[in-house]
Amino acid sequence: MSIKEIKIDDLNPGKFIKQKVDEIRSVVGNGLAIKALSGGVDSSVVTILGYRALGDRLKTYFIENGLMRENEPQRIVSLFQKLGVPVKIVDVKEQFFSALKGLTDPEEKRESITQTFYKDVFGKLVKESGAKYLMQGTNYTDVEETLAGIKRQHNILEQLGIDTEGKYGYKIIEPILEVRKSGIRKVGEALGLPEEIYNRPPFPGPALSARIIGEVTQKRIETVRKATKIVEEELCDSGAFQYLAILHKDRVTGIREGKRDYGLQIEIRCWESKDAITGSPTRVPYETLEKLAKRITDNVEGVVSVTYNITKKPPSTIEAV
Amino acid sequence: MSIKEIKIDDLNPGKFIKQKVDEIRSVVGNGLAIKALSGGVDSSVVTILGYRALGDRLKTYFIENGLMRENEPQRIVSLFQKLGVPVKIVDVKEQFFSALKGLTDPEEKRESITQTFYKDVFGKLVKESGAKYLMQGTNYTDVEETLAGIKRQHNILEQLGIDTEGKYGYKIIEPILEVRKSGIRKVGEALGLPEEIYNRPPFPGPALSARIIGEVTQKRIETVRKATKIVEEELCDSGAFQYLAILHKDRVTGIREGKRDYGLQIEIRCWESKDAITGSPTRVPYETLEKLAKRITDNVEGVVSVTYNITKKPPSTIEAV
Repeated sequence: MSIKEIKIDDLNPGKFIKQKVDEIRSVVGNGLAIKALSGGVDSSVVTILGYRALGDRLKTYFIENGLMRENEPQRIVSLFQKLGVPVKIVDVKEQFFSALKGLTDPEEKRESITQTFYKDVFGKLVKESGAKYLMQGTNYTDVEETLAGIKRQHNILEQLGIDTEGKYGYKIIEPILEVRKSGIRKVGEALGLPEEIYNRPPFPGPALSARIIGEVTQKRIETVRKATKIVEEELCDSGAFQYLAILHKDRVTGIREGKRDYGLQIEIRCWESKDAITGSPTRVPYETLEKLAKRITDNVEGVVSVTYNITKKPPSTIEAV
Repeated sequence: MSIKEIKIDDLNPGKFIKQKVDEIRSVVGNGLAIKALSGGVDSSVVTILGYRALGDRLKTYFIENGLMRENEPQRIVSLFQKLGVPVKIVDVKEQFFSALKGLTDPEEKRESITQTFYKDVFGKLVKESGAKYLMQGTNYTDVEETLAGIKRQHNILEQLGIDTEGKYGYKIIEPILEVRKSGIRKVGEALGLPEEIYNRPPFPGPALSARIIGEVTQKRIETVRKATKIVEEELCDSGAFQYLAILHKDRVTGIREGKRDYGLQIEIRCWESKDAITGSPTRVPYETLEKLAKRITDNVEGVVSVTYNITKKPPSTIEAV
């Protein structure tokens, strides 16, 4: 199986949208399709493409896995309601946290999320809904990185040769497989998505669990969620490609009220990049970095130390986990 | 027991030196004293004070514990030889690495180094030499931080109420107990030490083992030693109070030759401070930070990621371990 990239200069958004809407209609026929909307650019574009093609025959769910950013479920659902697309929130926090319990290896954590998402949560929703088609926001960079063995994307079973129809009872439709992030943003704009969605910085499939080194627990998610909120507030006007907070497992010595406090460390990354293939750390002014460190150590319980990543990709990757 | 600080403005280096030399002479009498010279400012100042007071009745050793920076033992010994002070290198690398094997808790690592240093290595040297007095470079900040419970200094047994005479067979003389780093530098200059010594950035007692999160092995020391050399080369002209490289235990995803490399992370810290009580991260130019990251990921095996610490002290401390 080979996928041919549509480069940004060769992309005609209007033509692309028409072609994909037609394809989705022809594949799904009179059936039902289902979409798990995460609120990211890729997922949002696919949802709108699916809704244009199928209308109410697209069933859209927001999976509340407990790993999302603050207020994310409510925010995304109300935003899509304004666009006329009905989205249902499914609360499966407990299932995800119990699946992640005790896991520390990044690949095992990803695999656990994949299994919980497809088999336990989505497989069940598909069966209940009667849908035979699952729409996915896999893009060209995901394909490339997965095939290169750099990362195992949670949404790319078919690329790895797994027969999803046989294994889980549904078929995956991936309309943006040939385009990279910059192209997807253009398509999102042409689809009439609000700018806060089509220009949104990328966010990983496994959500905040990809921002935790070591075990993912509800408490540790809460820590990285608070740090993420501060980082997003301070860096959203930076014009950077992506910015993120990572909770480390390593503890470092700190000092609180004159006493030793063996505490937590948060790492901040902020990237200049066109397409996530290569990247450089943004030259964030030191005033902003110091403000970030102060807000995080003042407001996120247990954190005594904050670092800023200064490595290029490669040899770094955008995310740490 | 209470120790009264001599503030920098109240310090008369010439008078201080005369007083300390007299005190050492009066305490040691006709006996022998022994000094473990590390090459730091504190240790060097105490060595010269002791040598002025006692001449050849001061026995000076450089303990090669395997945890020192590149070429440090040879460099320090030859520098003191030029000053007329004989120093003998004692190779005890194996003893330290076997004592540190398997330890990951910072306090346990410090305790293991303390025990190996005092009991196994120095106690033995003292007995062989016949010396009854051990000279130590403990300073006022060490006293303060140890009493506050922030850190357990390896050289401060008496402050913690341990009877070193009964336990190890010797008595500790600490001539710079009342002064902080800035005062010690003044005394060092007045003693005729070269500037590269009296203006040297501070370096922790447990040496590079204080720059390793997790287990201290010969291989991990080699990794942090290489990173330290690069950091010191790039930042020695920064005018900063102190600069250091820390090897983390956490692994992060990287990419090498197109393939996933689950590798190591080095954290850099560079401090503006007067006396180590409070500190701010130096605003190192991004050109330098990027050069540092490139040199480290290009030249230190296994490292795929480099961060720069942006937290003030407090709530951070100068060192991480």
